[in-house]
Amino acid sequence: MQTHPYNVGLDKNDANFVALSPLSFLERTARVYPQRLALVHGGLRQTWAQTFERCRRLASALSKRGIGLGDTVAAMLPNTPPMYEAHFGVPVTGAVLNTLNTRLDPEAIAFQLDHGGAKVLLTDREFSSTIARALALMTGPKPLVIDVLDADFEGGKSLGELDYEAFLAEGDPVYAWTLPADEWQAISLNYTSGTTGNPKGVVTHHRGAYLNAVSNVVTWTLPLHPVYLWTLPMFHCNGWCFPWTMALQAGVSVCLRRVDPQLIFPLIREQKVTHMCGAPIVYGMLVNAPAALREGISHTVQGLIAGAAPPAAIIEGCERIGIDITHVYGLTEVYGPAAVCAKQEEWAPLPIEQRAALNARQGVAYPLQQDVTVLNPETLQPVPADGETMGEIFFRGNIVMKGYLKNPEASAEAFRGGWFHTGDLAVLHPDGYVKIKDRSKDIIISGGENISSVEVEEVLYRHPAVALAAVVAVPDAKWGEVPCAVVELRDGVSATPEEIIEFCRGHMARYKVPKQIVFGVLPKTSTGKIQKFQLRQQFKSASAIG
Amino acid sequence: MQTHPYNVGLDKNDANFVALSPLSFLERTARVYPQRLALVHGGLRQTWAQTFERCRRLASALSKRGIGLGDTVAAMLPNTPPMYEAHFGVPVTGAVLNTLNTRLDPEAIAFQLDHGGAKVLLTDREFSSTIARALALMTGPKPLVIDVLDADFEGGKSLGELDYEAFLAEGDPVYAWTLPADEWQAISLNYTSGTTGNPKGVVTHHRGAYLNAVSNVVTWTLPLHPVYLWTLPMFHCNGWCFPWTMALQAGVSVCLRRVDPQLIFPLIREQKVTHMCGAPIVYGMLVNAPAALREGISHTVQGLIAGAAPPAAIIEGCERIGIDITHVYGLTEVYGPAAVCAKQEEWAPLPIEQRAALNARQGVAYPLQQDVTVLNPETLQPVPADGETMGEIFFRGNIVMKGYLKNPEASAEAFRGGWFHTGDLAVLHPDGYVKIKDRSKDIIISGGENISSVEVEEVLYRHPAVALAAVVAVPDAKWGEVPCAVVELRDGVSATPEEIIEFCRGHMARYKVPKQIVFGVLPKTSTGKIQKFQLRQQFKSASAIG
Repeated sequence: MQTHPYNVGLDKNDANFVALSPLSFLERTARVYPQRLALVHGGLRQTWAQTFERCRRLASALSKRGIGLGDTVAAMLPNTPPMYEAHFGVPVTGAVLNTLNTRLDPEAIAFQLDHGGAKVLLTDREFSSTIARALALMTGPKPLVIDVLDADFEGGKSLGELDYEAFLAEGDPVYAWTLPADEWQAISLNYTSGTTGNPKGVVTHHRGAYLNAVSNVVTWTLPLHPVYLWTLPMFHCNGWCFPWTMALQAGVSVCLRRVDPQLIFPLIREQKVTHMCGAPIVYGMLVNAPAALREGISHTVQGLIAGAAPPAAIIEGCERIGIDITHVYGLTEVYGPAAVCAKQEEWAPLPIEQRAALNARQGVAYPLQQDVTVLNPETLQPVPADGETMGEIFFRGNIVMKGYLKNPEASAEAFRGGWFHTGDLAVLHPDGYVKIKDRSKDIIISGGENISSVEVEEVLYRHPAVALAAVVAVPDAKWGEVPCAVVELRDGVSATPEEIIEFCRGHMARYKVPKQIVFGVLPKTSTGKIQKFQLRQQFKSASAIG
Repeated sequence: MQTHPYNVGLDKNDANFVALSPLSFLERTARVYPQRLALVHGGLRQTWAQTFERCRRLASALSKRGIGLGDTVAAMLPNTPPMYEAHFGVPVTGAVLNTLNTRLDPEAIAFQLDHGGAKVLLTDREFSSTIARALALMTGPKPLVIDVLDADFEGGKSLGELDYEAFLAEGDPVYAWTLPADEWQAISLNYTSGTTGNPKGVVTHHRGAYLNAVSNVVTWTLPLHPVYLWTLPMFHCNGWCFPWTMALQAGVSVCLRRVDPQLIFPLIREQKVTHMCGAPIVYGMLVNAPAALREGISHTVQGLIAGAAPPAAIIEGCERIGIDITHVYGLTEVYGPAAVCAKQEEWAPLPIEQRAALNARQGVAYPLQQDVTVLNPETLQPVPADGETMGEIFFRGNIVMKGYLKNPEASAEAFRGGWFHTGDLAVLHPDGYVKIKDRSKDIIISGGENISSVEVEEVLYRHPAVALAAVVAVPDAKWGEVPCAVVELRDGVSATPEEIIEFCRGHMARYKVPKQIVFGVLPKTSTGKIQKFQLRQQFKSASAIG
């Protein structure tokens, strides 16, 4: 290193350097706002002082059981206070929190517990039958199982040797709240839902979790003391880092065991919810819920939407019922959303159709993420910002995972060329906004022409009878592949496949029109993402039979 | 290091690690909001695209002249666009920006230019006479002088070989915007008025500047696109990092050459200013200005206040004229404010006197600063949070300087025990809020400027009639504090207070000149140390009598 006066005798020391960690937010908020509300769950009201104490007890109890640096603690929990507490009490011991998708089958859970090497498992009794089978299927050492007995859930069985409250009682309420020595230390392990067979374990770090938690505030202009409704599962990318964001802004976390408009609207009304997150399907439920459920709600709710581009009907419907939508984009590998379709002032007066089209784009990098852009996936050179040339979306910056656990090949491939490869195909618009055209595997190549399934779906969504739509490639002897669609109709509305095909012909090039329309229920992931791979399987079987 | 699966094959790479630097904000905002307004100055309107281009030209022109890593570029500039641009165009070259206090005398400027080793000096013609003398007084190599010719200032002389616009014309408008390889790299050099005559050069780094710029947003819930009026000099701790904060939030910087209600109110009205910062004296001016000046302003302006605790009259007056005050606290060593008197909901209904008392406290750490607290300065143990036990204020965290330039002893002392020693004496209230009881004995804060009493005393000692001198702070309704001196004359020599004041005027900046000279015998300890505490009491009594 070149020597100059600015790097002589001006080193890091304990006074001027601390590892960035979102764990610092909880300690500060518990000091500054000890008596403010942190958690609401059914009849439970828990302050920041109480939450901090419970997190310290959890950390202490884990430490006493030998949990520390580099160990894994898994959680099979809905959006309840113990899940919130695990986001602090686990990593402060040096351990890594592995949140499990509660809708997974026992085989997938067993794989994750084995692969991640979980030493402790916190599990809600709602999932006892899945977990019992998963534990039986495990090939490695079994974790210490701690049952969460939630007053708001009846049923299920206890599987472990003690319950969560008894475990907390073992812990020291004034356990030393020590930040990691290194901000690159792992904080969380999240397995990708895996549209292919083998899920990959995404390892994130304290520095990135800190920066994305802060970025949520900056991106959304999140005020102090928001009231945040947990419509987004915390097991999905750690709830997009919002457990930590809420600690930073001393917000109220309104817990929710399941996404149901019958639960959501009363909570919005009673708790005066100001903010929420979710996939388009969540907002779709709210938009399509009976108007009577919304009575007495006069304030606006801010909503982040991700997981799929929000259709115009969702944006319009949300506006109508008082939800102000901001579209964000990301993946588990970038801690949830790390791009935002930043709204421009000049969009405001445009008609809803145009605004929806602009807002449906994936947008630009989060303020604290370095970059998101569209490159040629072979050359890693930028595509022209013409809105037409297809490339792949790449991220770069501090809000990118450490890599995949015990999978150096997948990590190396994901980071090839100094960019994180998302696998999402997109174009770059002249204003620098990224617009997804498709997952690479969702591109349909028909007679040598590329067809974006997203583009066809957007047309389908404009048909008044269509509630949900998915377009996939089906093998075809003549064309190689042809687009086919599965459609969920709106309640009480009817349509024929012919009518919908006719509608498509009026709105797109002939070769892009679905050759077949099937009515049915779309298979979805727990976060509301449509599982296209399953649809392709269905069509394959159908074709084989037909 | 202990090996475990989370630190094997999960290293930093170009995709997942980028140095934290506020320079990234400008690049992003110029991309996302290229046509939005960045700078307003007189009749000038400058967009983010233009500002980014000018900063790249500045960086390129500096690079072409050989400026790079570890070099110093000084700026003697009021709050004008070139000063804003210097906050980006200088550090992106790897150089360090040394902002000079425009109120200083030539001797102090010469010391800083020599000590900091400035290779380039950007200077506004308003200060040409001071700078001409400073350059003549320098003992080291002279910097390349670049004159800023501001259309809004008439007079002054050009001193250098070229002007700022000609210099920018030398630069490349598409200069590569490269972040530092190391976020610990120095970004700025700001000299404090130390307790000794020789000011200390506070060196800050990219990581801290980034985090404090973000912290301003979080602390203040600063929305996107604020309209920020530059009542706070950018030469004070880089304007508390607000040049970078404005780039992060794509705000409008409304420039201001001097703090004058006759200029400020029309700008608030015409530009719809939403945010401003300043010392209590600035707000005092606004509160005491004729009501007619405020006509037509109906919106609330958010104001950060620091430099001294805001008196109740200021808080009350600001409320009356539509300025919502937030009290922050810090020092140059912590990038300006790094503590905030965070408001609690339950304060709102209290009477103004009580609210003012609560808000006059220095408060708690910034959300992204690790800690501020009161410790026993000898033992570094916490004082009881009883609101009575006196200790010293200490900071710790990422928003703390690298250290003092070429001054390892002062750096070591400032960081002794792993805390940054502020020298401010305070108590800790039961709610964890810090409250200053007394400024460190040698510093006088007058109109937001730090005055070293020792420095003034050294000048007094140069007067042939002066035997002993002590300078202390005396409370002042307008300036907060003013320096006053007690002088023991030499035997058999006579002088008048007026003569001594006149002598001081010839040797120091105007604001440092003692407002009152009293002749008398200085109270001393048995070891001959002057007891300033007793002097302050004397002046208090005198004031009370007068």
